[in-house]
Amino acid sequence: MSPDSQSSAEAAAAVAPQPAADGAPTVPTLQEGAHPFRFTITARCPHTRARCGCFHTPHGPVHTPRFMPVGTAATVKGVAIPQLADTGAEMVLANTYHLHLQPGEAVVAEAGGLHRFMGWQGPLLTDSGGFQVFSLGAINRIDDDGVVFRSPRDGARITLTPERSMAIQMALGADVAMAFDQCPPYPASEADVAAACRRTHAWLERCVVAHDRPGQALFGIVQGGCYPALRAESARVVAGFDLPGIAVGGVSVGEPVEEMHRIMRQVGPLLPEAKPHYLMGVGSLREMAIAVAQGFDLFDCVLPTRLGRHGTALVGGERWNLRNARFRHDHTPLDPTCPCLACRLHSRAYLHHLIRSEEMLGRTLLSLHNLSTLLRFTRAMGQAIAEGCFAEDFAPWEPASPAAHTW
Amino acid sequence: MSPDSQSSAEAAAAVAPQPAADGAPTVPTLQEGAHPFRFTITARCPHTRARCGCFHTPHGPVHTPRFMPVGTAATVKGVAIPQLADTGAEMVLANTYHLHLQPGEAVVAEAGGLHRFMGWQGPLLTDSGGFQVFSLGAINRIDDDGVVFRSPRDGARITLTPERSMAIQMALGADVAMAFDQCPPYPASEADVAAACRRTHAWLERCVVAHDRPGQALFGIVQGGCYPALRAESARVVAGFDLPGIAVGGVSVGEPVEEMHRIMRQVGPLLPEAKPHYLMGVGSLREMAIAVAQGFDLFDCVLPTRLGRHGTALVGGERWNLRNARFRHDHTPLDPTCPCLACRLHSRAYLHHLIRSEEMLGRTLLSLHNLSTLLRFTRAMGQAIAEGCFAEDFAPWEPASPAAHTW
Repeated sequence: MSPDSQSSAEAAAAVAPQPAADGAPTVPTLQEGAHPFRFTITARCPHTRARCGCFHTPHGPVHTPRFMPVGTAATVKGVAIPQLADTGAEMVLANTYHLHLQPGEAVVAEAGGLHRFMGWQGPLLTDSGGFQVFSLGAINRIDDDGVVFRSPRDGARITLTPERSMAIQMALGADVAMAFDQCPPYPASEADVAAACRRTHAWLERCVVAHDRPGQALFGIVQGGCYPALRAESARVVAGFDLPGIAVGGVSVGEPVEEMHRIMRQVGPLLPEAKPHYLMGVGSLREMAIAVAQGFDLFDCVLPTRLGRHGTALVGGERWNLRNARFRHDHTPLDPTCPCLACRLHSRAYLHHLIRSEEMLGRTLLSLHNLSTLLRFTRAMGQAIAEGCFAEDFAPWEPASPAAHTW
Repeated sequence: MSPDSQSSAEAAAAVAPQPAADGAPTVPTLQEGAHPFRFTITARCPHTRARCGCFHTPHGPVHTPRFMPVGTAATVKGVAIPQLADTGAEMVLANTYHLHLQPGEAVVAEAGGLHRFMGWQGPLLTDSGGFQVFSLGAINRIDDDGVVFRSPRDGARITLTPERSMAIQMALGADVAMAFDQCPPYPASEADVAAACRRTHAWLERCVVAHDRPGQALFGIVQGGCYPALRAESARVVAGFDLPGIAVGGVSVGEPVEEMHRIMRQVGPLLPEAKPHYLMGVGSLREMAIAVAQGFDLFDCVLPTRLGRHGTALVGGERWNLRNARFRHDHTPLDPTCPCLACRLHSRAYLHHLIRSEEMLGRTLLSLHNLSTLLRFTRAMGQAIAEGCFAEDFAPWEPASPAAHTW
C-alpha cells in the first residue's frame, strides 16, 4: 500500500482559486506555495466580520463556519464512522500525542495513512502534540530545542521537537498539520508568555522548514495569552508565514470567559482575511457565535463527547444531566428540533434509563446528539450569514435570541 | 399513548395459515386460540429434521432458523438500532428481570411498550425473569408459589410468581412472553430436577391462566436437565398446552457439550412439529447447526456481545483475541467474507488499536461483527435448507465443511 494514494495528483487539481458565484465579495487569491489548499469566501455578514466559506482539501471541502469533532485516538469516542457522517461533520481532528504513543505513526503510515486507518474519508486535521505534552504533564525538560517527557504508557523517555512533530504528522497524513507550539498555562506572567511566544515563533519557522508533505497543509498558531501586545505581535509574526490557515491557541485554558471573549475580539481582526481562522479548543454555542462574529471559521472541543459520556446533553443552550430523576417518566424526544439518532428514535426516559444503567449505548447516543447540536449550530450560522441575518440571529448569541427558533 | 397500538387488529389479520408456495410439504394448520400467531414451514431438509420457516408476529416476520440478539436492559449493549437492523436481526430479546428492576415495567408501559421504549419496531421476546433469579442468586425463599429475592439495586424484597412474571411481561408488551419456569443448576440430582419439572409444569398452567394480552404469544419451556425420562415427560406436558411456540431450557447451564448435544438430539424430535422451537441460551455455530438438524428454529446467547466487549471476534469458527500483538500490523479486514461495518470499513490493526486503547468503538464494532456472524450463519442454514444442501454443508457443521465457503 502507498502511504497516501490521494496525495499530490488530486491536491494539485485543487489549486486555482475561483470567484464566489453568488455576488459576495470576490475571493482573495491565496499565495499558494507547496500547499495547494484553497479557501473561498462565499458570503459575508454586512454587520460583523462573520463570513462563510469553503476550505478545499484533498479529502473534500470543509464548509465554514464549522465545528470539528475530536477523534483523539483515531476514533470519536463511541461513534461509528457512518454515525459521525450523520452529525454533519466534515473535518475531524485526531491527536498526534495519543497516536504517537498508540499505535505509533508507523502503524498508521503502514495502513496508508490516518484516513484509511480510521476509515474516515473526509478531511482530517492533527494537532501538534504540544498541547497534550504541556497539559498532561510528566515533562522532564523543556528548552529551545523541544520537550522531553515520560510516556504515560511505559515511562519511556520521548523527545518532541518541531521537526519530530512534523515527521509524526507527515506520517499520519492528515489533510492539515498543526505547528508545534508552546501553550503556556493560565495564569502565566507576561515574561513567561513572551518567552513562550518567542519559542512558538522560532518553532514555527522550524516546522515550515521541516514540513514537506504534498497534499498536507500546515497551519501556524498564534499565542500570547491574555496580553494584548503579545497577541498582536504573535498574530503579525504567524501571519507573516503566509500558510494556508492560521489558528489561535492559548484560549479555553482556564482563563475567565470574559478574557476569552476579549482575546477573540482582539485577535480575530488581526488575522489574514483570506485564510481560514481556527479557534482551538472552543466549542460552546455562545463562544462560537462571538468568535464567528470576529471572523473565526473552525472550532474544536472535546466537550460534546466528554459530556455525552458522562450523561449530559446539550439542549437549547443548556446542559441537561440525563441521570436526573425528572427524566424518568418523560417520554418526549430529547430535543424535538434535532434530527440526530437519539432525538429521532428515542425518548428522554429511554436515555435516562440507559445512563442510569451505565449502558454504552446511552453514552454513544448523547455524544451523537451533542456533536449534532454543535454542527447544526455552526451550519445554521453559515446559513444566517448567507441569508444576511447573522447579526440579528447570532451576534451575540443568547438563549433567548431568534437563533433558538431558526437552527 | 395506548399501551400497544399495533396489538389486536394487526394480529387478528395474521391468523390464517397458508400452504407453502414452493412445493415443500403442506404447512400443518395451527390450532389457534387466543394467540393469533402463525408459524409457516417453507422448506425441509430431506435428510435431517431441519426446516426453514416464518414465524409471524404483530411486529413482522421472523424467518427461521434465526439467531436472536440479547438486549438485556432494552438495549443490545453498545449497538444502536440501525446497526442492530444491519446485522440481519429480526427478533430481539429483552430481560424481564433487569427491566423490572430498572426502569420498571410501569415506565415501559407508559412509553407505549417495549418497542416504543427502545425504538426497535421488529419482533421482541421477553424471558420470564426466572433464569436470572435462579442464576444471579440472592434468593431468600423458593416454594411452589414462586421466588422471593433481594433486589441487587436496593436490597428490596421482590416476589416473582408465574402471575407476577406474566403481569410484568404483559406490561412490557413484547410479541412473545416466556413462561416462568424453574431452571435447576448443573449438576443437580434426578430428584431435584424432577421437582423443578413438576413446579415448572404447575407454573406453566398458572402462566396460561394469567396471560391474556392480545397480540402477545406465550411460549412454554421444557426442562428436565440431563435426565432423558424427565426431558421426555416435560416435552409431553409442555407440548400438551398447545401454545404458539415451545422452548427448551436448562441447556448451556454448565453441562459438558456432549451432554448438550445429547439433549438436543433427544428433545428436538419430541417437540410439536408445527410450532417454532426455541433453544434457549445456545449461540455457538456448531451447536446451532446440530440443533437445526434436530428441528430447532430460534436461538439466543449473550456470548457474541459479551465476547465483543472483551475484545474477542468470531472469525471462521474461531475466537480471536484482538488484543493480541499479532494483529498490530495486520491491515486486512477482520473477516473478508463478512459484510458488517467492522469488516467493511476497518482493519484488524485498527480494531486491535481500539481494543488496546480501551475505546468504546472497539467493543461496539466487535459486538456488531459477532452478531452479524451468528445471524449470517443462521440465515445461511435457512438458505441451505431451502436449496437442499443443508445436510451436506451444515450437519454436523465443522470448520472444514463446505459451509465455510457458502455462508
